[in-house]
Amino acid sequence: MPDAILLDRLRAAVDAAFDEEVRFLQELVRFPSLRGAEAPLQDWMHRQLGAWGYAMDRFSLADVPLASHPKAAPMVDADPARSVQVVAAHRAANPTGRSLILQGHIDVVPEGPAAMWTHPPYAGVVRDGWLYGRGAHDMKAGVAAMVFAMDAIRAAGLEPAADVYLQTVTEEESTGNGALATLLRGYRAEAALIPEPTGHTITRAQTGTVWFRLKVRGVPVHVMVAQDGTNAIMSAYALIQALYAHTKTLNQAARANAWYGAMQDPIKFNPGIIRGGDWASSTPAWCEVDCRIGLVPGTTPEEAMRAVEQVVKDAARGDAFLANNPPEVVFHGFQTDPYVLEPGSEAEAVLAAAHAAVHGGEMPARLSTAVNDTRYYGLYMGVPGLCYGPKGEGAHGFDERTSLADLKTCTLTIAAFIADWCGVREAG
Amino acid sequence: MPDAILLDRLRAAVDAAFDEEVRFLQELVRFPSLRGAEAPLQDWMHRQLGAWGYAMDRFSLADVPLASHPKAAPMVDADPARSVQVVAAHRAANPTGRSLILQGHIDVVPEGPAAMWTHPPYAGVVRDGWLYGRGAHDMKAGVAAMVFAMDAIRAAGLEPAADVYLQTVTEEESTGNGALATLLRGYRAEAALIPEPTGHTITRAQTGTVWFRLKVRGVPVHVMVAQDGTNAIMSAYALIQALYAHTKTLNQAARANAWYGAMQDPIKFNPGIIRGGDWASSTPAWCEVDCRIGLVPGTTPEEAMRAVEQVVKDAARGDAFLANNPPEVVFHGFQTDPYVLEPGSEAEAVLAAAHAAVHGGEMPARLSTAVNDTRYYGLYMGVPGLCYGPKGEGAHGFDERTSLADLKTCTLTIAAFIADWCGVREAG
Repeated sequence: MPDAILLDRLRAAVDAAFDEEVRFLQELVRFPSLRGAEAPLQDWMHRQLGAWGYAMDRFSLADVPLASHPKAAPMVDADPARSVQVVAAHRAANPTGRSLILQGHIDVVPEGPAAMWTHPPYAGVVRDGWLYGRGAHDMKAGVAAMVFAMDAIRAAGLEPAADVYLQTVTEEESTGNGALATLLRGYRAEAALIPEPTGHTITRAQTGTVWFRLKVRGVPVHVMVAQDGTNAIMSAYALIQALYAHTKTLNQAARANAWYGAMQDPIKFNPGIIRGGDWASSTPAWCEVDCRIGLVPGTTPEEAMRAVEQVVKDAARGDAFLANNPPEVVFHGFQTDPYVLEPGSEAEAVLAAAHAAVHGGEMPARLSTAVNDTRYYGLYMGVPGLCYGPKGEGAHGFDERTSLADLKTCTLTIAAFIADWCGVREAG
Repeated sequence: MPDAILLDRLRAAVDAAFDEEVRFLQELVRFPSLRGAEAPLQDWMHRQLGAWGYAMDRFSLADVPLASHPKAAPMVDADPARSVQVVAAHRAANPTGRSLILQGHIDVVPEGPAAMWTHPPYAGVVRDGWLYGRGAHDMKAGVAAMVFAMDAIRAAGLEPAADVYLQTVTEEESTGNGALATLLRGYRAEAALIPEPTGHTITRAQTGTVWFRLKVRGVPVHVMVAQDGTNAIMSAYALIQALYAHTKTLNQAARANAWYGAMQDPIKFNPGIIRGGDWASSTPAWCEVDCRIGLVPGTTPEEAMRAVEQVVKDAARGDAFLANNPPEVVFHGFQTDPYVLEPGSEAEAVLAAAHAAVHGGEMPARLSTAVNDTRYYGLYMGVPGLCYGPKGEGAHGFDERTSLADLKTCTLTIAAFIADWCGVREAG
């Protein structure tokens, strides 16, 4: 645990820069950094962090050998060359402490119909202690926290006594390839912290995720000769229902899971996008549904994918239209392993101590039914991947918002964690 | 019935120009005259028919007082000012015969996935006696037939002894406003023939059609907290299922219908277009479904519309998501009365005689479960609206095609009908 005097210095620095931190987060939110459109934000980030003295690296997914890695996920609707990553390095002279990666994703999911937002999704409106906007909570607040945690150390007249990499990545919401790309670029450290908005809890485990697209095709006819139900939209629905039934079966089996056994229905299936047909008076010839399904620790994405294929195949047999027009399953994104942060790591203990120093009491743990990028560190690099961050509401929904009071305490917690994990020295 | 000598003159003229007629139809098919994109074809038609000596009139739906007519249908996704109509008038000096409107629509429905076509949908490929393409059958073949029927009369050294209007219209596939616009422009005649591809049958009756768009909206959440089924896509499906059940009830009642009682399920419900959601890992916040539903003679579009609204309202009450997020029903196209061509008109008798002269035997009658534009003449103008035309396959489907042998006999039949209805004189 950082000593009380150091903590006070850091707290004073966080407090002093907090208005600036809020403005920084507002700037982040004002970039509509949807998938495929993250580059302007990343260019801005590159200039900002460069101006603050970091050694900068900027590269796209096309600059790393993504295809060579077994855990790279397919990118069907996005261009790797336009997906820009940024790494800002603090390289310590004669490092004496433990190195650290601080990473956050800056891609956001679509905001949906604008009319359903109380405040415009990319305005960064602050009201009653909350900052609103798509990505404010998931996870630009965490990015602001990690950047200003480092800034607080410097503002306190200190510097980390080890290498620290501040990384902003893309593709967290669709494949994970952004985080993977930083590893393929060669970045390593003795621990990684990703400040996803966990509400000051440590993420003990996360489920895996698989994305797939159902493609139904068939021969349409004029509606005047159509019989009820023999159309691509209705056949897609039959597949969706079969997948809901499959999910129910999976959740029954998950009751025996070591980590998720006590949770009601940890495996989420979601038909998230649908599009089909061209004309109200033509029987639809095609329908596509983009889906996600989860998987619990102890199972693999490959198993989940084979099961989805089998369910679709079996359901097609029982549908008049599909039996003659077999549907396709295209895996077009996430193929993510579940990840458990095994208790007992030194990194977690240091984070828990920082949490206790700022918040008082034990750091709570949570089980997540969504993915985050820490899996790359924990599963494939052998270093603890800590997922811990600020507090907010409305991830992937309307009126997404982050609590500014919690942003401040989280920034201080991360500063304290950096100070203790890396060590600090008076800046020269 | 036209006398045998006249029929031989017409037959020789149709035969002589048939290669040209096929090329004309190919030209028509090569225009992708989808809704909103009909103007280039209409401009070409205007030049062609103008060059052949007709008095030409070209106007858009914005040039007529559409809104003033109680039977105008809403146009939600199309601009009236871009929807061009063409009328080519043969004005007889000292007319002695009966005037006639020959009308065809040149709008086509979307072609769907190109990969599902054997021949490209807008290439106009001729193979084994068929001409392929979107609209070849529905109803550009009919347009070619009516244009070359008039041409055959002229090529035979004759001219109709009454006014004849050749009209090419839009919006037949979505509202009917194109045909209505010609009436609002002031065009009238003592009979109207629309050579939809009926396979040489007279259309005795047509069902009405109503288009509507279901709009489901709701508050989405991250999939990690979603419960099964509480999403806009699944709620839209609940509405669709309720509408299928409603259609079943309507078809049971239709067993007592004077015209359609013997037909199995004359009322067709079709969910034709669906779109919803923005992200595989976000619970969809919105879903829209474009639908059509039919109605049998004896019922009105207003009754059908009120019934759809009631079904949606009732279904929403039983759905967890919709109960809190009431869906909308938007009527965005067809609001079409059913139409029965009452047997016994002189116009039909003349057409039957022409049919008998060319094909031998009685002209068969059919009941249609789709709309055509003859209703404007029969229901609101008090003149017989005859729907009779060539033969083909694949309306609104893939590999749509028209039979060239039937195109030729149909052209001759229409020429014989014109000659008998209008009378002919040797051209001066």
